[in-house]
Amino acid sequence: MVGYAFMGAAHSTAWRTVNSAFDLSTQARMALICGRDESKVAGAAAKLGWDAYTTDWREVIERDDIDVVDVCTPGDSHAEIAIAALAAGKHVLCEKPLANSVDEARAMVAAAAKAQASGIRSMCGFNYRRVPAVAMMRQLIASGRIGVIRHVRAVYLQDWIVDPQFPLVWRLQKDKAGSGALGDIGAHIIDLTQYVTGQKITGVSALTETFVKERPLPAESSGLAASSGEAAEATGQVTVDDAALFLARLDGGAIATYEASRFAIGRKNGLRVEINGSLGSLVFDLERLNELEFYDSAAPTAEQGFNRILITEADHPYMAAWWPPGHIIGYEHSFTHEMRDFIEAIATGTDPAPSFLDALQVQLVLDAVARSADQGTVWTDVEPALAE
Amino acid sequence: MVGYAFMGAAHSTAWRTVNSAFDLSTQARMALICGRDESKVAGAAAKLGWDAYTTDWREVIERDDIDVVDVCTPGDSHAEIAIAALAAGKHVLCEKPLANSVDEARAMVAAAAKAQASGIRSMCGFNYRRVPAVAMMRQLIASGRIGVIRHVRAVYLQDWIVDPQFPLVWRLQKDKAGSGALGDIGAHIIDLTQYVTGQKITGVSALTETFVKERPLPAESSGLAASSGEAAEATGQVTVDDAALFLARLDGGAIATYEASRFAIGRKNGLRVEINGSLGSLVFDLERLNELEFYDSAAPTAEQGFNRILITEADHPYMAAWWPPGHIIGYEHSFTHEMRDFIEAIATGTDPAPSFLDALQVQLVLDAVARSADQGTVWTDVEPALAE
Amino acid sequence: MVGYAFMGAAHSTAWRTVNSAFDLSTQARMALICGRDESKVAGAAAKLGWDAYTTDWREVIERDDIDVVDVCTPGDSHAEIAIAALAAGKHVLCEKPLANSVDEARAMVAAAAKAQASGIRSMCGFNYRRVPAVAMMRQLIASGRIGVIRHVRAVYLQDWIVDPQFPLVWRLQKDKAGSGALGDIGAHIIDLTQYVTGQKITGVSALTETFVKERPLPAESSGLAASSGEAAEATGQVTVDDAALFLARLDGGAIATYEASRFAIGRKNGLRVEINGSLGSLVFDLERLNELEFYDSAAPTAEQGFNRILITEADHPYMAAWWPPGHIIGYEHSFTHEMRDFIEAIATGTDPAPSFLDALQVQLVLDAVARSADQGTVWTDVEPALAE
Amino acid sequence: MVGYAFMGAAHSTAWRTVNSAFDLSTQARMALICGRDESKVAGAAAKLGWDAYTTDWREVIERDDIDVVDVCTPGDSHAEIAIAALAAGKHVLCEKPLANSVDEARAMVAAAAKAQASGIRSMCGFNYRRVPAVAMMRQLIASGRIGVIRHVRAVYLQDWIVDPQFPLVWRLQKDKAGSGALGDIGAHIIDLTQYVTGQKITGVSALTETFVKERPLPAESSGLAASSGEAAEATGQVTVDDAALFLARLDGGAIATYEASRFAIGRKNGLRVEINGSLGSLVFDLERLNELEFYDSAAPTAEQGFNRILITEADHPYMAAWWPPGHIIGYEHSFTHEMRDFIEAIATGTDPAPSFLDALQVQLVLDAVARSADQGTVWTDVEPALAE
Repeated sequence: MVGYAFMGAAHSTAWRTVNSAFDLSTQARMALICGRDESKVAGAAAKLGWDAYTTDWREVIERDDIDVVDVCTPGDSHAEIAIAALAAGKHVLCEKPLANSVDEARAMVAAAAKAQASGIRSMCGFNYRRVPAVAMMRQLIASGRIGVIRHVRAVYLQDWIVDPQFPLVWRLQKDKAGSGALGDIGAHIIDLTQYVTGQKITGVSALTETFVKERPLPAESSGLAASSGEAAEATGQVTVDDAALFLARLDGGAIATYEASRFAIGRKNGLRVEINGSLGSLVFDLERLNELEFYDSAAPTAEQGFNRILITEADHPYMAAWWPPGHIIGYEHSFTHEMRDFIEAIATGTDPAPSFLDALQVQLVLDAVARSADQGTVWTDVEPALAE
Repeated sequence: MVGYAFMGAAHSTAWRTVNSAFDLSTQARMALICGRDESKVAGAAAKLGWDAYTTDWREVIERDDIDVVDVCTPGDSHAEIAIAALAAGKHVLCEKPLANSVDEARAMVAAAAKAQASGIRSMCGFNYRRVPAVAMMRQLIASGRIGVIRHVRAVYLQDWIVDPQFPLVWRLQKDKAGSGALGDIGAHIIDLTQYVTGQKITGVSALTETFVKERPLPAESSGLAASSGEAAEATGQVTVDDAALFLARLDGGAIATYEASRFAIGRKNGLRVEINGSLGSLVFDLERLNELEFYDSAAPTAEQGFNRILITEADHPYMAAWWPPGHIIGYEHSFTHEMRDFIEAIATGTDPAPSFLDALQVQLVLDAVARSADQGTVWTDVEPALAE
Repeated sequence: MVGYAFMGAAHSTAWRTVNSAFDLSTQARMALICGRDESKVAGAAAKLGWDAYTTDWREVIERDDIDVVDVCTPGDSHAEIAIAALAAGKHVLCEKPLANSVDEARAMVAAAAKAQASGIRSMCGFNYRRVPAVAMMRQLIASGRIGVIRHVRAVYLQDWIVDPQFPLVWRLQKDKAGSGALGDIGAHIIDLTQYVTGQKITGVSALTETFVKERPLPAESSGLAASSGEAAEATGQVTVDDAALFLARLDGGAIATYEASRFAIGRKNGLRVEINGSLGSLVFDLERLNELEFYDSAAPTAEQGFNRILITEADHPYMAAWWPPGHIIGYEHSFTHEMRDFIEAIATGTDPAPSFLDALQVQLVLDAVARSADQGTVWTDVEPALAE
Repeated sequence: MVGYAFMGAAHSTAWRTVNSAFDLSTQARMALICGRDESKVAGAAAKLGWDAYTTDWREVIERDDIDVVDVCTPGDSHAEIAIAALAAGKHVLCEKPLANSVDEARAMVAAAAKAQASGIRSMCGFNYRRVPAVAMMRQLIASGRIGVIRHVRAVYLQDWIVDPQFPLVWRLQKDKAGSGALGDIGAHIIDLTQYVTGQKITGVSALTETFVKERPLPAESSGLAASSGEAAEATGQVTVDDAALFLARLDGGAIATYEASRFAIGRKNGLRVEINGSLGSLVFDLERLNELEFYDSAAPTAEQGFNRILITEADHPYMAAWWPPGHIIGYEHSFTHEMRDFIEAIATGTDPAPSFLDALQVQLVLDAVARSADQGTVWTDVEPALAE
């Protein structure tokens, strides 16, 4: 694994748990963790349960006893590491968004396609696909239970930078993060809604805003994910969006609203999706991820309602691995499910999803959103993600 | 109508509205309102829309052009007024609880039975039976949708006397109110749960408590419903319960918990009932009275959940009279429905429910609860309400 | 009152109730109701409690003993009736949207301004301003409790035309209704959000959709509000939008998403508004209109949350007129509050809000939305509503 | 660890995770797991991550390199194993309920007291104390935020044996499980409410019921936790309660209702507790364990409400160890917190809570409940748990 911060910790928990939670075709071993700061990565290795650590990601790739590379770095290094790992014959799991630009993403797709010919697997880490309630949404929609989809309504709302004194961490810098709320959390609702509906976004009209344009530079070891080596000056420019809103059309005829914001005070991890079809509706809220609301118009009129299903039964996706009904799981379990699916795909020689190509398509939507916002909210078609 | 305070206002709104909301067999006319304080009842008559007022309730009974007497006084005068009205050939609607004692209630039942032989109708005002979601609960249970009932769980929680400085109004005096939370709000959940389940409580084990035992005497014209003519002294004894809790068995095999309290801070009108059967469950909350939750085990396991049904459809009980779906109704509508049913019963020559006999049975449960609490929470059988 | 259908019934309930619920400076009398179909309007007069009826709206205007005209007709006749009534010296309450076109609305504003010089009052019926929780939102925002507003998120979702066999009622015809979901329910969320935030929408980017383009013609006396005199043919074109989505900027710096749809299955009267400020957030849901959620960042971090306030206390707007805490009110009460405010404005010689000018501004937003949607979702500035 | 079924798996997950989640004074090592069935325990050891396994629990006690014994067996073997382990100088964590009888529990308390003199620690596994929202409840109550406690209202509702064909597993046999819903889940709400309020139950009035009195014997390897070695006959008697209800008084003046049931259809892990004090209220629901509702009467009247606090902030109990705000945790995390606190107590030489004495006191409440139910719901005082 390359990276040891927030995503590094979440992935480590999943790698540590997956063998025990599931009956796997092959077992995961936590061989080597990589980070640039030696004392930090050494601490992370010890605490998170890795056998060894290194400060050079190339070492990960060079070791023959390592089969899988898990890329958890900021977006600006995804392409270089993933492409090198694939070239070295490693299966690659890469955190989302796939890259910071469409060009990088295209290069990664090409590398993944080439590697795939040799049986090397690649997958992008849109972990929310593996929340059981989300997987259940997809099943219900795929089986026609809500009919023709009319509306998609998706928000991903957080509030961690509402305070103007919150420092200028790497996630607020365009060169490191690619974009702000858009790529970080907007990417999740784009992927999730396309995944559950089976429809792709074809065009968008977008608006972005940066409410706080200048922020204090972070101290060397600040909070969530500060980058190292800051200059001495006091403040710097925020170069990414604080919030991104867009309207969209999907290729199956649905119309949609999307909103990603880090300024929705009170909403901590507020990913909420509602899908209205001709026969029913589905509602999901990540802050209550063990629940799914399902409105089914097949019921008698007097008994129709939003049915709050607790997604903790053994016949719900992934849940047979866990506790008895009603005993809820948490955020990190989505990663454990991700690792399970990735391991099984490798072991059984099948291609896991979302592929790098799927992730490129998300990148192209992000790109269309950014271009629309840059050009006065003009309607902007999403470029097709041709596979070759 | 006799009485013009809280219940007087609520009933007046209903009498004023019922002709317009429903297509009735006969129309209501608001002829005469009665109260002891002339200036107050005159004001009430004008404001609430009554044609005339009087300070003597006997005048209501003596007038030939009056067919119906609606008794909205405190419980200590129910028996006298209702029995006189029935004897005078008036149809009587009497607020709950029917009386302050079982003896009074028995006398009222006898009077009602005698009057019934002459086609005179009587009904007790357990208005929550007419909340559409409650009526819907009864329909679902009666049609077997939740199977054999195992559990009844009922609370009615308020908090309006939490402040020890809240004055000693008539509702806190045993001679006027009969009991405290028990008769005032406990009576509602006893009637409601017996109504929806179709089962009667056969025995109880009860605990009551008076948390604040002494309170300031009310100023002459205080708040909700202060009685007039207070003595000069500063405080007085609270002679009723602040809270009453009891376990019960019902005659269909269900076991139950009941709780009525005026000390549940934050719960304003918190009547909440949950019924668990062998095939499903139902949940109702009066603070969200337009909703009913229904868990139906007939659904596939993976789709079972508590279904929040918005009870605003034309095929829900009483709702065809009101607005389009989703446009909610309020507390007072339960009274309008009550008046509608009472008028139709009179017009069609049928006996309305709950009868005085039904109300006597509730009184007998209240009595058993009080006796159990007085005798150290001993199990106490509910005396049967024989009809003769 | 002119009109006797859905809005006619709702307004009648309010006119019938307002004298009893509030202590008014002057009393309302329900003098005359007008409708084109004599037998229907006669029935409505009797049932809804009007003293008399007429089939000619000019009679309403000509009667000297009538002071107020309440216009509840479809939008295509608002301008003619309201302008004539104002010219005749009647105070006018006109249902929303004010008119079917900006030109009509401008003419009405001019008529209102002229009448105002003679002390004649006019008001547009955006009744949701008078939902107590909405009035409370405005108070909290105006007093700075949520700080600088960053986000407005508003949907108004219904589902009554999801069935393709639902007939082509007047609300689905552009010549009668002006627009579809946009003007009918979109107008409500435009007015409500501008009202509570104190900000005006300056520009929009919009998308509309008609999912079902052809529908059966209604039988003569169909459902909600069918117009009379249909032709013999079997189906007709739907000429209005089924759904309208738009992004917006407000003049105080907020960015917003809006969505109005009649195809959101399961959402019956789903008006939901969330406002995020720099210091707090507010959430309102019309299906639970007695509640307001308030997130206040002034609380200690560990105690911050969405506080569900039951808006039933005597110190909440309008609520002293009603029942004790926790006893909820319904949809129709918003109209009673509207009538109260209108009567008091007339009696005290002040101008009620929303004025026709306020309503014109909403019309201009609707117009910008329609133009944006017609022109490929292009960003469209809202034309200023200059008062002359 | 002794035991490898449901609790064994949950505890293993916690032991595997605790080193990584927290910065501990000493690290946990998963040395040895014990179970009677060799092939099953071998499989459990491999899957759950234990270094070795044994079929003889005495081996656990004899090994010098083992410091801690975690007892996860059915209640009938707790006393023997725990007492032996304490005598051998092992720190003991014992699952709840502490024992199947008061006598056994008293013997365990004596053993713990003796061991404590040598610095040996013991703790009972009431894991829900370590749910962050529950720990937060205790903090708020201890700091006086809800004032004098008036009401405790606690239910623990499940539905896994509603089906009469569900087999007669060990949890339905009195000799193995001690009691049914009462000891299994009732014990949790007794401990939890006493813990958060700081009050002890002094007397109870109880009712128990067994709805399904005869069930099929389980196949050898059935469901949740079937015991092995069943006889050949088809059905057997259920010898425990399906549901237990009781009223209680607490030593601080609060009155309470408790209900534990396995027949509340639709409630999967429905532990719900509400505490009403003189100044505020708290509500917790285990199916939404990341949330706590807090009603604070110190707020202005118009702003009082049930505040839904998402307990995912770094300044909430235990939560600094996990993810950013809004990223929820699950059921199993309560065990990780339990292990953390147990390890720290051992490492720092302090006594962890709940002690065996605390657990004995819960046992005495269970005993009073059982005796009250056996004697016709008579009021029954809880025997004091004297420490020597």
